[in-house]
Parts: sequence; structure tokens; C-alpha cells
Amino acid sequence: MSQLTHHEIVVLLVSLGVLLAAARALGEVARRLGQPAVIGEIAAGILLGPTVLQAAFPGVGEWLFPREGPLPQVMHGITTIAITLFLLVAGMEVDLSTIWRRRVAALSVGVGGMVVPFAVALVPALLAPRLMGWDEGSSVKVFALFLATALSISALPVVAKMLIDLQLFRTDLGMTIVAAAVFNDLAGWMVFAMVLALMGHAASSGLELWHTITLTLVFVAFMLVAGRWLIDRSLPWVQAHTSFPGGVLGFALVITIACAAFTEWIGVHAIFGAFICGVALGDSRHLRPRTREIIEQFVSFIFAPLFFASIGLRVDFAANFDLGLVLVVLALATVGKLAGCVVSARFAGFRSREAWAIGFGMNARGAMEIILGLLALEAGLINERLFVALVVMALLTSITSGMLVQWSLGKPKPVRFWAFASSKSFVPDLGATNSTEAIRALARAAADANPDLDADAVAEVALARERLMGSGIGGGIAVPHARLATIDAPAVAIGRVPGGVDFDAPDEQPARLVILLITPASQPEYQLRLLASVAQTAQSPATVERLVEAASWTEFLAALNTDATPAQEHG
Amino acid sequence: MSQLTHHEIVVLLVSLGVLLAAARALGEVARRLGQPAVIGEIAAGILLGPTVLQAAFPGVGEWLFPREGPLPQVMHGITTIAITLFLLVAGMEVDLSTIWRRRVAALSVGVGGMVVPFAVALVPALLAPRLMGWDEGSSVKVFALFLATALSISALPVVAKMLIDLQLFRTDLGMTIVAAAVFNDLAGWMVFAMVLALMGHAASSGLELWHTITLTLVFVAFMLVAGRWLIDRSLPWVQAHTSFPGGVLGFALVITIACAAFTEWIGVHAIFGAFICGVALGDSRHLRPRTREIIEQFVSFIFAPLFFASIGLRVDFAANFDLGLVLVVLALATVGKLAGCVVSARFAGFRSREAWAIGFGMNARGAMEIILGLLALEAGLINERLFVALVVMALLTSITSGMLVQWSLGKPKPVRFWAFASSKSFVPDLGATNSTEAIRALARAAADANPDLDADAVAEVALARERLMGSGIGGGIAVPHARLATIDAPAVAIGRVPGGVDFDAPDEQPARLVILLITPASQPEYQLRLLASVAQTAQSPATVERLVEAASWTEFLAALNTDATPAQEHG
Repeated sequence: MSQLTHHEIVVLLVSLGVLLAAARALGEVARRLGQPAVIGEIAAGILLGPTVLQAAFPGVGEWLFPREGPLPQVMHGITTIAITLFLLVAGMEVDLSTIWRRRVAALSVGVGGMVVPFAVALVPALLAPRLMGWDEGSSVKVFALFLATALSISALPVVAKMLIDLQLFRTDLGMTIVAAAVFNDLAGWMVFAMVLALMGHAASSGLELWHTITLTLVFVAFMLVAGRWLIDRSLPWVQAHTSFPGGVLGFALVITIACAAFTEWIGVHAIFGAFICGVALGDSRHLRPRTREIIEQFVSFIFAPLFFASIGLRVDFAANFDLGLVLVVLALATVGKLAGCVVSARFAGFRSREAWAIGFGMNARGAMEIILGLLALEAGLINERLFVALVVMALLTSITSGMLVQWSLGKPKPVRFWAFASSKSFVPDLGATNSTEAIRALARAAADANPDLDADAVAEVALARERLMGSGIGGGIAVPHARLATIDAPAVAIGRVPGGVDFDAPDEQPARLVILLITPASQPEYQLRLLASVAQTAQSPATVERLVEAASWTEFLAALNTDATPAQEHG
Repeated sequence: MSQLTHHEIVVLLVSLGVLLAAARALGEVARRLGQPAVIGEIAAGILLGPTVLQAAFPGVGEWLFPREGPLPQVMHGITTIAITLFLLVAGMEVDLSTIWRRRVAALSVGVGGMVVPFAVALVPALLAPRLMGWDEGSSVKVFALFLATALSISALPVVAKMLIDLQLFRTDLGMTIVAAAVFNDLAGWMVFAMVLALMGHAASSGLELWHTITLTLVFVAFMLVAGRWLIDRSLPWVQAHTSFPGGVLGFALVITIACAAFTEWIGVHAIFGAFICGVALGDSRHLRPRTREIIEQFVSFIFAPLFFASIGLRVDFAANFDLGLVLVVLALATVGKLAGCVVSARFAGFRSREAWAIGFGMNARGAMEIILGLLALEAGLINERLFVALVVMALLTSITSGMLVQWSLGKPKPVRFWAFASSKSFVPDLGATNSTEAIRALARAAADANPDLDADAVAEVALARERLMGSGIGGGIAVPHARLATIDAPAVAIGRVPGGVDFDAPDEQPARLVILLITPASQPEYQLRLLASVAQTAQSPATVERLVEAASWTEFLAALNTDATPAQEHG
């Protein structure tokens, strides 16, 4: 049996390690900048691929990512599995009941937000295919269909993440956007499956085109009706009779791989089967959060970064960057999506501001666009220039979408109390026996961290306020505060009192965590919003317990940072 | 760049799906029979490989697991990564502080249990290598060293799982066995790294042998001192500044891959680096249980089954089964291990029964043995007959070890109350408004499920007992019981009362879960042990809550079945 040599195993491990490290590191940088992780992951691949590293150091690039021998095939096998599992997670996020509950608005915005951009892209692609990056050798019709589909799919995960960040997720507006995006995702993938079949992918399967299309429809109908029911009925049995949660994990992966193999065999693509399987699986109320988390975390933080970084290895983004094409694609994608969504949102009864917010929200493309583009590139339907333009368009619309929604709603960014503190203004042990000592110690820490603050002035104002009413809010937390005319930005100091100190809390518990809020008199809304942020954190006793135990600023941040929404990092 | 074809992707997905499904299914069967999952996983590979499927249906076998073309190499790449991650988890289970706390007993049993079997295997392998399955063409000395090492390593995970099953894990005896096994594991792998270097694996790396050995020692010393410290210091920072738990997940995998690549490069093997990395990583108190669980579950239930099943694909277990060799290997392994452990355990102050229990416990070989054998097979050091003998020996010692420990201690198996109930004796809603109605309904259910029970007789005895003292034990659970002379096996009926019914509990809470225990008068100890089993379950309010919500017997079992110890399924 042919095996990898010692040298090939070393190269495989080094290349996987480097790819994963770079993708995760840049993914985190993107996240810190408030962007989806996928942007950093693709950037990592561009840096390591022919665009930068292999252009600058051809020897290193060729050693790390050889283009001949068995390793590219091994890498292709691994990234195929990675993207298949990523689509499983993407499918699991499609909540059919969300669409059902908001079917009118979702259908209206979903259909409008799909049909209009489809038409807007289809017409020019048919009339002026060369301008849109079409190359001799493939069918113009299929090319136009592909481009129209690619430009009309919104990225559900990016949309969901943006809404959560803007604290709009649970609002009426937010749920409508999500329902429309879910519908859009599902319908878009159905259309795309047809395009894939037309793309000639079907030919290699040895099936007739109409066989492929019939089998695809049968597969989707089966999975979303019988398959969904079967999975929902099987899960309790699997959970009862196998190790938990590992048994369900294996079960989920086996049916995903089976669906992926089936759709690949009929000539659509493995990832389509995985996506539909994810929809059926994610819909079961018997899939427990713990199982879901294990799949999502492993896929979102290991498999997805590997896949997205591997994209940059395949294409030279510098040589294939065509500004004109990028602008055309960007303009068509944005105009079509905005027109379709805004008009249909107005039609569904939303006010103008909200309709624009829906349009900008749905304009985010993210990872799905890029995956579609890659499949078309592999099938020889589009060239590398158009692929690069699609990637750039997807990244740009994802980056700007959140900002534009916020701008159209005129809604300010959420305020978080810890954003105004630092390691300097964090006091691991206040060493205080009463509230006055605690406030004085925190005022000193705040002044150390912010040179324009005067410790005594802060302490006096906060103490005067404290005398009016104790600032303990219960649950072991106190929030003394001072409003000053002399500053123009808030400052926060945080201190622990392991033994606890009385702050006259309604539940009579001593405060073990004291958070001093210092806000500018010119912006009175800051005080309320910082208080709200503390109150939100205090709602979880488990979080408070971790915060109280945090002996350093780093541990304090770590204790806060436990509610990531992993799968929504991509899109 | 060379890529996989459409057909190859279909085959890859189908073969992975079939392999994973068979491995998981048989792994669960093994678990149900009280055996480590690895036994079922290897059996799955044997069924799908040349031994059975490919012998019976050569066409199917060749289609599913081709021996030529790129797919075997892709599979080799994937299983190499799988086994590397499995060793990471195995290393994470090595708790250095356990050894340190019980260093006298652990060192004594650990060294004795290593040196004696090493010598017992080394001498015959040097004197009569042919009898031990040595083939012309490799060095007798290296062969003897390998066999001696392979026969002297205990399987920590199998040992730990067995102790947990026997409820011995937290006892003095249990912790000594674990500490000795941990020491054994660590020391064994160190010796094995040397053997690997000698095996000529080093030659392919292009380094001198003494370079390899020096670099290995430097690597281990660095990882267990500086690396361990660095990881412990880095984890809080990573947790604070990246998405949780995905950030840590990526971090852990990147350093594991880096260590694996390093040890592979210096000529030892990738898995050795992953194992040492796991020891250093698992030792950090900052590695949170959630991160640990995600890694362990995914590796134990996806990667490990794939790897162990793939072993059966490589070797024909029927053609290479040599009964004489199997018996020789089994005898040498068992005699050496027992002699070494029993004598040194007696020396460390254990009583005779306990010393034998330690010996039988340490005799479990499990997965580690098999991995070592596979590496030796790949390096051409041993032939397929000896490999098969090693696998059979490893499986047999793992299967018998638990039984023999129990037998030497004379300790009975633990009793679990639900083992005596069934879907027939489970009543989702008792519809009772008082304890008498509840007991009568449960007695009827018990009689339905057990034809030799009389419902009225059971109810009368239980009600008489209930009048003496209410059987509510608090936390919403009541345990009415009846001891009958007419039966010779216990029976249990379980019923829910969603609204709750008074059973005179010490905490005055109404019972929402009523468990009727019916025990034979001839075996009075059953009643106490069933009660203890209920009390143990009742200790976790979360479990009780899930049990109360379980609307069917399947859901009830699922709610009980949430404390699997996943990584200990292998060994």
C-alpha cells in the first residue's frame, strides 16, 4: 500500500501547523477589529501562498506547500473534509422555525432580496460576459447563472453575528433579517445545486443532467421531511444507548459524510449534502447544546481556518487583482441586493430607516460566496481574476455591512464597562475594610491609569454620591460612581475585596467586586449605559464567581470572555 | 496543483463514512459488553479489511479501500493526524502530580512493573529470536529491545477506566495503580523513543543516531520543565485575548502539531512529540474543563475510531494468526508484568490480595501496545505475524484485566437501580394524587414487566413499609420498597408525577419521581445497594431535573447517561 515517506509526514505536519497558526492568529486579529474571523483566515492564506511568501521566497514556499507529489492531494482531501464539516455547521444554524414564524416578512424580503440581485447580475452577464470576467471555453449561460446565484446569496452567519454585536438579534427587525437570510441561504443553495449540475460537474459523475437534478430534489425533499423526522426520532435512542456526547458526535458525522458522498456522487457537490444534512440535524430539539458546541468549536476553530487559509494557497491574489472587475462585481452585488431588500422590506411594512438597515444587513456575503467561487474556479467555469474579484467583494461587503446598518439606524455602539479599564486600573486586592477605603483605593488606581484624573477629586465626588445611597447592587458587586466636568471620556477602575466589604446592597451581601465608574458630565448617557453593562454581567452568578476569583487583569478578561458565538465567526 | 478527481472524492467520503460508522457501532457494542471501545474499533477494521470483506468480496474491498493511486496516501495522512491527536489526549491524562504525591509506591510498582517484564521479554528475544517472530533482515538487538519495551508498557487509559468501573478509582489502591501506570507510561515512551531512533527511523531523517537521542532528551526536558511553565503562563493570556474556547483549541493543536513535526523530523516519531506535548498541556491548571472536553470528545469519538479501524485495513489477521506465537507473547507479557508488579507491590507494603489486583490491573495493554506494534511493522522491524500476536495479546489482557482485578479482590460488581427496570416498568405519568395511588400504580407496572410478580402482593408490602416511615428521600425523589420471599431477583419500577405527590420527605418537597424497589428476601444486601444507587443519582440536582423531564424510558436512560468518561474508552 502506498504510504507517505518520513519527509512527507514532516512537511505535512509543518504545513498544517503553519497554516493553522497563521489562520488562527490573523482570525483573532480580525475579530479584535470587530470583523469576521474569515477575513483574517483568508489573509493568512494569501500571505503564505503564491501572492506573498512563495513570490518572495520561492524555495520556502515550494518546500512548505509543494505543488507536485502526493502532498497536494492529501491537503485537498483534508480541506475537502474541512469544508464539508463547515457546511454541516452552517446548515445547523438554519432554523426552519424562524422562517415559519415570520414567513410573510421573511418570504417578502427573502424573495425580493434574491430575485432582484439575481436579475441585476444575470442580464449584464448574459449581455457582456467578457466584461464580467468570462473566458472562452465555458457556456455563457451557465456562467451567467453562476454569477447571478453567487451575487444573490447572503451570508447568514455574518448577518447573525452582526445583529448580535449590534444588540439587535432579539428585536423584531433582527429576527426578520435573520429569517430572510435563512430563507435566502436555503433557496440560494438549492439554485446553486442546479448550477453545479449544469456546470458540468454532473458530467464527471456519469449521470444525465436531468437525473442529477431529479436526484437533488428528491434528496432535499427526503432530508427535510423524512430525514429530519428520522434524525429527530433517532437522536434520543442514540443518546440513550451510546456514550454521551461522543455517540451523537459520531452519529452526526457519519450521516453528514453519507449525505456528502451521495450529493458528490450524483454530481452536485459534497458540501451541498453536508449543508442539507446540517439543516435536518440542527432542527432536532434533541440535539443537546453540549454536542452542538463540540461540533461547532472544532469545526469553526480548526477545520474552517484550515480551509479558508488554503484558498490563499491556490490563487495569486496580486497577479489576478483586476480593479475594474472588482468594482463591477462590487457595484452589481450591492445595487442588486440593496434594491431588492429595501423595496421588499418597505413593501412588508418596515419604515425607511429599517428597510435600509435590512438591505445593508443582507448585503454581507462572507464565506458562502467564496466557497461558491472556489467550486466554480475548480470546475473551470470562472477564471482566477473573477474569483479574486468575488473574494474581495465578499470580504468588503462583510466588513462594511455592520457599520452601514448602524449608520442607517443611527444606533450607537454598545458600551462595555471593561473597555474603559486596564491592567493599571485593576486592583487584585483593595485591602479595604469599609466602602470609603475601597473607593479611595480605586480612585488612586484610576488616576494612575489616566493621567488627567485627580485621585482626590474623583474620591470626593464618589464618596458624596455614596453617602446619598449605597452603591451595592447585590450579588457581591458594588458600583460607586463619579460624574466629573473635567474629563471628556469615561474611566473605570475595578478592584477585588476577597473578604467582602459592606456597600449597603439590597440583598445585604458584602461586595467582593467594586467597580468605580467615572463619567464625563458632558455625556450623561455614559453613566447609565456603563451601569447597564455591569448589571448585564452581574446577571450570571457563574460569571461573577469567576470575576471574583480573577487574580489579574488577564484572568479578569478571560473570565468575561466566555460567551463567544463561535460558528458566527465565519459566514 | 494535483488534486483529487470527482471519483476519488466520492470514494474518500464513502470509505471514511463506512470506516467511522463501523468503528463507532462496534465500539459501542464493546462498551456495552463492559470492554474498552478500542476492541470494537479494531474489530471493525478487521471486518472491512483484507481479513474478511476484501477476502469475501475483492471487488468491493478494492473499490472502497484502493491500494494504489493517491487515496491510500490521503488516508495515511489523515490517520497520521488522527493518531497524533490521540496521543495528545493520552498525554493530557498523564497527571504528573499524581506520581509525585505517591512517589514511593508509584516508583516501586512502576519500576518493578517495567524492569521485570522488560527483562523477561528481552532474554528470550535475544536467545531465541526466531521463536519470537523475528525475521532475517533486521537487527536482533533492536528487535529484542522493541519487544521488551512493547511488553512492559501498561495502558493507562484502560487501567483508569477499569478502576472507575470497579469504583476503586479514588481509593488508596486505585490511586497507587494509576500513579504506577502513569509512571510506566511516561518511562515506557521514553525508552520507546530510543528504540524508535535505533530502529532506523532515525536514518531516514538524515541525522546521526546520537544526535537523535540527544535531541529527544533535550526536547523532553525542555517540554516538561520550560514548555510546561510557558504553556501554563500562556493559557490565561490566550483565554483572555482570543475567542473562548476556540482560541485555546487552536493554540493547543498548533503546539501539538509543532511538537509532532519536531520529533518526526529528528527521527523519533510524530506521536511521541504529541504525547509529551499532551503531558505538558494537560498539567496546566489553566486548561479549562470545557476546552479539555471538546478536544477529548472529538479525538476519542472521531479520530481514534478512524485510526484504530484503519489498522485492520492494513493487515490480514486470519492469514497472519499464529497460535503458538500468540501464546508465547501472551505468556511472556503476563508472567513478566505480574511478577514485577506483585513483588514490588508487596515490597511497597500492600497485602497479598491487593498486590495481585495491582498486577492484574497493570497487565492491561490496550491501544498503546498496538500503536507501538504498528510503528515497528511500518519500520520493517517485525513481521505481520508478530504484529497480529501483539494486537491479540493487547486485546486479551485488556478484556480480562477488569475481571481478574475483581476476582482477586473478591469485590462484587456495582448495582445500578435502572438495570432492573425496563420500558414496561417505566410510567411516564403515574396520575397519582397521594403516595398510596403512586405505589399501587408502580406495583402494577412492575407486575406487567415481571410475570412472576403479583401486583397486589407487592403493593401491600410496600404500603405497609410506607406506613412505618415515609420513603421520600428529598430532592423530589421517593423510594418505596418491598422485600419479598417469593422472588430471587430484584425488580424496579419507575414513575413520574409531574405535579408532585407527598412522600413525607425530610425536606418536605413533594416527590416528582417515585422509584419502587422490589428485592428478594434471600438477598438482603440488594435493598441497601439499590438505595445507595438511587442516592448517588439523586446527588446531582441537574440529573434529577433531567430525569423528571424524561417523558419516555429512552429519554430517562439518556438523562442518566451523561457522565461518560470518553478518553478512557481507549487505552
